Amino acid sequence: MGGLSAALLLTSLASQAQLKPEEQVEIRQAGYQFMSWNMGKIKAQVIDGSVPYNQAQVSAAAQTIAAIANSGMGALYSPQTTREQFGEQTRLKAAFFENLEEAGKVGKNFAEAANQLASVAQGDNQASIKAAFGKVGQSCKACHDQFRAK
Amino acid sequence: MGGLSAALLLTSLASQAQLKPEEQVEIRQAGYQFMSWNMGKIKAQVIDGSVPYNQAQVSAAAQTIAAIANSGMGALYSPQTTREQFGEQTRLKAAFFENLEEAGKVGKNFAEAANQLASVAQGDNQASIKAAFGKVGQSCKACHDQFRAK
Repeated sequence: MGGLSAALLLTSLASQAQLKPEEQVEIRQAGYQFMSWNMGKIKAQVIDGSVPYNQAQVSAAAQTIAAIANSGMGALYSPQTTREQFGEQTRLKAAFFENLEEAGKVGKNFAEAANQLASVAQGDNQASIKAAFGKVGQSCKACHDQFRAK
Repeated sequence: MGGLSAALLLTSLASQAQLKPEEQVEIRQAGYQFMSWNMGKIKAQVIDGSVPYNQAQVSAAAQTIAAIANSGMGALYSPQTTREQFGEQTRLKAAFFENLEEAGKVGKNFAEAANQLASVAQGDNQASIKAAFGKVGQSCKACHDQFRAK
């Protein structure tokens, strides 16, 4: 990514005016929680094998993660919604807004990885799904490591 | 719908064993909150006109609602997760589990309406999007009227 993604992120940030900071925090947490549930289903069926693989369920989970990743969550971030204002209610570090270029990059990587997972999950090649799932996990971690408080 | 949808709902209910009741409540609320945010974006752009219509944003919102609707939320419902156990933490009436045939029917209608909205939102015919949005809203209300406490 370059200046374009950062510009898109800023545009997205600017269009959030109608949401209150507490709404941004709640809705973005809802999005991540729902994605986490769906990641867990794929993990159980394709990685751990603790639940039998069901192609339709894995695909539905992957489509959900991708749709949420592409839903414009940038609008749920503003400098008024970090740990500095919300304490234990959020783990978002203020550093996110001090490095929007990097934030845009990790967000773009996440969306691309989620789209790839959604694509391969429409088939039933579990090795491909496993690889794509790993890349989504890496993209989650890249953001957590930089912008999420421990 | 007939016996098949009720059977599918029961299968979905049965596969939830690994989630605790409080997790079911939290995750399903996250899903509905995230859908509500996306419904609000479509409403603002296509119904109220309070925000200029942006085809990509409306389509992304509609895809998100449909993906969540198709994600297998039946696994987030169990008789241990109603207002009887959770009080103010949930508005789910125990009546849901006393009438699974009807619950399956409203759930199926909702998914179909969400899929139709996602389909028309890929184009830019705002009249069609408006009509499909209305049907999603009706399907939401049908469930709320029967199974959600005031």
